[in-house]
Amino acid sequence: MNQTVQSARQIADCYIAVWNETDAARRSVLLAEGWEASATYADPMMQARGREHISALIGAVHERFPGFRFALDGQPDAYTDKIRFSWMLGPADQADMIKGTDFAVVADGRLSSVTGFLDKVPTSAETGN
Amino acid sequence: MNQTVQSARQIADCYIAVWNETDAARRSVLLAEGWEASATYADPMMQARGREHISALIGAVHERFPGFRFALDGQPDAYTDKIRFSWMLGPADQADMIKGTDFAVVADGRLSSVTGFLDKVPTSAETGN
Repeated sequence: MNQTVQSARQIADCYIAVWNETDAARRSVLLAEGWEASATYADPMMQARGREHISALIGAVHERFPGFRFALDGQPDAYTDKIRFSWMLGPADQADMIKGTDFAVVADGRLSSVTGFLDKVPTSAETGN
Repeated sequence: MNQTVQSARQIADCYIAVWNETDAARRSVLLAEGWEASATYADPMMQARGREHISALIGAVHERFPGFRFALDGQPDAYTDKIRFSWMLGPADQADMIKGTDFAVVADGRLSSVTGFLDKVPTSAETGN
């Protein structure tokens, strides 16, 4: 792996770890390490600015989907300050229930903006709604 | 189609039209219609800022790959001011030789930034280099 690919993988792994952290205090530590203070996050359902707001948004997803886990799907792709990676989210027995791809911009090794798109959305029956 | 989807499709169609325009004067007209004056473009090979720079970059691709055409691959995906779409590029007998996905931000109906990633890259033998 060259340095860009290795660094992209580390950033994506940290991103997934933040999304899987159910403890708000530990999540704050991870966000401080891996995200800029003024970082932005957007996906088709939610938008957030700043670590505190992003943490609250992640907490809301855990409340909404208890027991669901995020995992990286494939290898991240990166050049200059840009990175793209895909992920999956689901309960233990259906890890790929929901899938998406995030595009992010990195500054000094930390995420400054993340824009997510959805690649696979379950029917409401599958998520129990 | 709802308005966002329809608008996303129009923006993506205009984007493909700009990339397929081999005449620099006509390309300038299309860029003025569909892109902000200070728009940025980036992909793993090239970066450009402003319509003139972007036009020159597109012209260089036509010189490099004469006869190649861009086409939209699937449907664009959009929310708020963000859009994602995939494309293919190739000669008439291999339209999907090169494939990619672009992520863009739109302002007042015009592209303000485009970030591209490659999904399929041919071997050098296929492009004759």
